[in-house]
Amino acid sequence: MENVAPPFELTQDYLDKFREAIDSQNEAYIRESLASVRHEDISALLEEFNAEQSKYVLKLLEKDVASDVIEDLDEDTRSKFLSVFHPIEISEYIEEMETDDAVDILNDLPIKVREEVIANLGNIEKVNYIIELLRYDEDCAGGLMAKELIRANVNWNVVQCVEEIRRQAENVEKIYAVYVVDDNDKLLGRVSLMEIIIAKSTTKIADIYNSEIISVYTYQKEEEIAEIMQKYDLEAVPVINVQGKLVGRITVDDIIDVITELADQEIKLMAGIAEDVEEDDNVWILSRARLPWLIIGLFGGLVGARFIGVFEEDLMKVASLAFFIPLIIATGGNVGIQSSALVVQSLASITAFETSAWKKFIKTLLVAILNGVVLSGLVYAFVFFLYGATLAFVVSVALFSVVMLASLLGTAIPLALDKIGFNPALASGPFITTTIDLLGLAVYFIVAHLLYNF
Amino acid sequence: MENVAPPFELTQDYLDKFREAIDSQNEAYIRESLASVRHEDISALLEEFNAEQSKYVLKLLEKDVASDVIEDLDEDTRSKFLSVFHPIEISEYIEEMETDDAVDILNDLPIKVREEVIANLGNIEKVNYIIELLRYDEDCAGGLMAKELIRANVNWNVVQCVEEIRRQAENVEKIYAVYVVDDNDKLLGRVSLMEIIIAKSTTKIADIYNSEIISVYTYQKEEEIAEIMQKYDLEAVPVINVQGKLVGRITVDDIIDVITELADQEIKLMAGIAEDVEEDDNVWILSRARLPWLIIGLFGGLVGARFIGVFEEDLMKVASLAFFIPLIIATGGNVGIQSSALVVQSLASITAFETSAWKKFIKTLLVAILNGVVLSGLVYAFVFFLYGATLAFVVSVALFSVVMLASLLGTAIPLALDKIGFNPALASGPFITTTIDLLGLAVYFIVAHLLYNF
Repeated sequence: MENVAPPFELTQDYLDKFREAIDSQNEAYIRESLASVRHEDISALLEEFNAEQSKYVLKLLEKDVASDVIEDLDEDTRSKFLSVFHPIEISEYIEEMETDDAVDILNDLPIKVREEVIANLGNIEKVNYIIELLRYDEDCAGGLMAKELIRANVNWNVVQCVEEIRRQAENVEKIYAVYVVDDNDKLLGRVSLMEIIIAKSTTKIADIYNSEIISVYTYQKEEEIAEIMQKYDLEAVPVINVQGKLVGRITVDDIIDVITELADQEIKLMAGIAEDVEEDDNVWILSRARLPWLIIGLFGGLVGARFIGVFEEDLMKVASLAFFIPLIIATGGNVGIQSSALVVQSLASITAFETSAWKKFIKTLLVAILNGVVLSGLVYAFVFFLYGATLAFVVSVALFSVVMLASLLGTAIPLALDKIGFNPALASGPFITTTIDLLGLAVYFIVAHLLYNF
Repeated sequence: MENVAPPFELTQDYLDKFREAIDSQNEAYIRESLASVRHEDISALLEEFNAEQSKYVLKLLEKDVASDVIEDLDEDTRSKFLSVFHPIEISEYIEEMETDDAVDILNDLPIKVREEVIANLGNIEKVNYIIELLRYDEDCAGGLMAKELIRANVNWNVVQCVEEIRRQAENVEKIYAVYVVDDNDKLLGRVSLMEIIIAKSTTKIADIYNSEIISVYTYQKEEEIAEIMQKYDLEAVPVINVQGKLVGRITVDDIIDVITELADQEIKLMAGIAEDVEEDDNVWILSRARLPWLIIGLFGGLVGARFIGVFEEDLMKVASLAFFIPLIIATGGNVGIQSSALVVQSLASITAFETSAWKKFIKTLLVAILNGVVLSGLVYAFVFFLYGATLAFVVSVALFSVVMLASLLGTAIPLALDKIGFNPALASGPFITTTIDLLGLAVYFIVAHLLYNF
């Protein structure tokens, strides 16, 4: 096992020693202790230090290692760190990166710094690539792709292809296949590295390339690309422009980040958190992200108060009516969240073909009726035993109606949001619960009012 | 573009024609129309048909295509479909699959069928592999890995290595690298295919292999493996046993499925859905998955009713107290869900190093105070204006306390669940809301009781 490097573990002990080494400018210790550490782990380590300390460490590393480390930092940390570097220094690191990573970083820099960094880049081809990539939105194929890839002309033979791989080996980080193009750079297909290894050196690329490949257009959205790569198990996908010309390549590691981010976002929306915050953001940002939905919920509560006020007379007569307010609205909320979460999930997964809306509606209705019957049956039994028949009847009828309402709204609202172009997960949080709370109260008090006044 | 196959689109029109072709046993049409369709798309198409119809279609496909199609079916559909096949037929398909996929399918078969299928497999090496893999849990590295991979002895040269690649090319679907082992099969490192292409044929593997690679043990959990592969951007990871011997390989496509599944599961837990259900499961399963948490919430509501009952006298005096019950518990619920979602997210992401619990606690407290002040300030203003000073004071003091409580519990409960080995997302759903509802009611009525009785 000694030969297989174990994942690095960041201990408090190591952290303390490292901090000491920085404070005492112990270059030898820092260099030596980081020599066998992967760049991803150095990034994690630097998250524990401030910009000046990190700059000191980064300067001690080889340029290519340092640029890998910078690539892998959390976005916020990176912006903070890079603010203490001179644009010329930043461009030296950018020079070492693949174009997609370079563009991600440039996009986060203040515009003036970005321009200076680009002006200081030495490699003209890279500058052109970067300027091309900068014009794409970050969430489409153009914004995700790297320009680095291996392309082979369809008229080449295997030897020429191997020559090209050798020539590009240093520039392209992960090579899975060679993309085959015609004289106009139109994408025709691919040859996997394995096929190149197996083929005779005189074999024509035209005879071995696979034309049945999947490509994406520069304008396609990241969600779509994630779906395609996941469905067809692709480790990389070529990107073409509207003319069918090969312009870049997206690798699976970037898509995994997209998938994780989208899931993250969905959970935050469901929990009613407005911005993309992390636990380690500062107090102001965290509060600001949470207040909007809380305030909306608050106004829902105030409207609810006014509404119950209408039934003050009933409450004066039967104070025990108030006892079941929490039960009614909590159940409504729970049912609503369950329903909307299921819909959101089914909207997120690719189904080539959808069962008819009508069938779906019937099913939702049946599940709601079943759940409603079980819950109101249970509640009837308990309330009858503790508070008598009338109240038991009121509570269980109201509960059944609330379960039905919450199921239907919990299903319909996300579908409607999705139709009009909003993220359906938006509906699963406080939005649904607030709406259902109010409707639940209405049902409860109207049922009670009718029953107690006849 | 004509040469680059576009993703297949399943239209209602195509579906109707295809159904007709099955009914009229139009073999020619089926064969021809599926000839250029990817196996993933055929799987999606078959989801629209029943077991007998699908069997008819599968029988018309080449064995290797049919086995790819079967691999890609949804688990439930697959079990249904395979139930109409004879074990001998199933073993013919299994024969075509990589061992990890074969084992996934075997695990879902009734034990008797599974044994018959294995007994009918012709390839002894594959049988041994499958029997080895069957003993691992599905959610650990051993259960995820495939036995198919390319291994090279460290004493070989590049030519020998290429020979091995050629020999195995048909058995191993996605080759990214060759794993280098010693005479005892101990994993020493890897050589990427690109390095093999670039190297001279007489080069010794010992001179070009990279020993700084990451491997995982057979017993490591899928969550851990997903983290590692995501962090280090790996397209495949070798699996070793406790002696360090190379026993298998996990590819990134399987890990993407794990990541998606875990996110899915988290959302379901947050929404209070007990089982792993999909929208297209039947009504009984859907109801059963939803009832447990609803019933727990219901009993929470009944306890709440008893609790409010204690304060019946206060309610008789000041009926308007009841008006704010929804506001108090809804805000408590919303704050609790937000807090727990943030904690769950931070627990799910890998941080090499955690800020101290003390620092976290202070921050949670500050955010809670800030939100509490804003919300209770708003509510004070409104209630003062509409209902007068005393009630405004009661409601805003209670609301502030509830926001504090909900923030702290919403943070503490998932952390505690995580510590004792439960999925922390469990806490974000009805569990937290029910707890906080009850505590919120307690705070509200106790504050009210104290203020109205002094």
